[in-house]
Amino acid sequence: MTKIEVMQDMMEINNAYAADNRKLFQKKGVFVINIMGSPGAGKTTLLEKLLSTLQQHIKAAVIEGDLATARDAARIVACNVPVIQINTNGGCHLDAKMISKVLPGFYMDDIDLMIIENVGNLVCPAAYDLGEDMKLLVMSIAEGGDKPAKYPTAFLSSEAVVLNKVDLMPFVNVDIEEMKNEILEINPKIKIFETCCRQGEVTGIDDLSDWLVEIVKQKKQASRN
Amino acid sequence: MTKIEVMQDMMEINNAYAADNRKLFQKKGVFVINIMGSPGAGKTTLLEKLLSTLQQHIKAAVIEGDLATARDAARIVACNVPVIQINTNGGCHLDAKMISKVLPGFYMDDIDLMIIENVGNLVCPAAYDLGEDMKLLVMSIAEGGDKPAKYPTAFLSSEAVVLNKVDLMPFVNVDIEEMKNEILEINPKIKIFETCCRQGEVTGIDDLSDWLVEIVKQKKQASRN
Repeated sequence: MTKIEVMQDMMEINNAYAADNRKLFQKKGVFVINIMGSPGAGKTTLLEKLLSTLQQHIKAAVIEGDLATARDAARIVACNVPVIQINTNGGCHLDAKMISKVLPGFYMDDIDLMIIENVGNLVCPAAYDLGEDMKLLVMSIAEGGDKPAKYPTAFLSSEAVVLNKVDLMPFVNVDIEEMKNEILEINPKIKIFETCCRQGEVTGIDDLSDWLVEIVKQKKQASRN
Repeated sequence: MTKIEVMQDMMEINNAYAADNRKLFQKKGVFVINIMGSPGAGKTTLLEKLLSTLQQHIKAAVIEGDLATARDAARIVACNVPVIQINTNGGCHLDAKMISKVLPGFYMDDIDLMIIENVGNLVCPAAYDLGEDMKLLVMSIAEGGDKPAKYPTAFLSSEAVVLNKVDLMPFVNVDIEEMKNEILEINPKIKIFETCCRQGEVTGIDDLSDWLVEIVKQKKQASRN
């Protein structure tokens, strides 16, 4: 019983920080996306491609979460976007307190969209509210078609899933239509995108970008009214 | 402070179960491998290929860990190997207590090697001792060359790493020699294997199998002396 109570306690603390983060984001009119996915789903590469399209329409900033290294942040800096790296030192997910600590490092009045790239992990990040408006799941099709059924929580908590690395389709045993059906069985409301971010074969980024820009603008409009 | 103490407490409880599991395995002469890796690293497919080779030399059994479904266990049953599925119901790793609960379901006197396939997660499983003799990491090269540096704990705690899906090499931006060097920088003692488990292109399984059979036999010999 003690263990469960302490877990609840930790969750309550996290939720309190998340509520504060959410309040700040709303006050500043910043839309926030929490990107989740397995190691190697292609989150950072997708982000690089996405940012160059998004930046034509809205101002984005990024928080990069990793166990170790600042490699991802270095890649995002090259996209000319404000970025702060959080190292969890072995921790398996970002939590709301970690986010709240780095927020003073951003000039929020200048940001429409904050993208948080969580630690590569298809399990734990789904359980922690960071104060985001939306969770977005990225999945490499090379991970295999059985992953939605085997990791349902991440799919249940996300508003959209990006099936990435579709260029690998001919080389992996995955039926993408079957995979989509399985995803929709778990979460009938989830929006599904297909992308490839491989140099020279980039596809699907515009659809994803258009959808995000529209949501961010709608939210901004609504908060002004 | 409470949080840290409780974590220590949880780890102590886990370690106590792990010690009991280890004692039982040793008494029964069963060598135990804890297989870890990201979702979609190819752990179960590797296991299917590996079991058919291993079974020519030693008697194996399998514990399958997943958040949900019994899909992996169903695949292993088809290999004619005793298997028990553990569903963590959303939990991000197996722990030693879960293992201890299913052990009575095996006829241990008839087993040389117990293979535990952990939940697909490159972070949390590395922290939990299950009573195994060895941790083995499986990684799809499609996950990308930066994963060792970004997820060092899993590489530090493993005695061997299997770089799987090497057939995808021509289609992903990974320099496998550079990747190996990065892995050896983190853990100079780690043994590295390269495998492909794709139907019709299976490679590297014999090397891995030979190495494991030799270790299991040595251990068995040593425990008899």
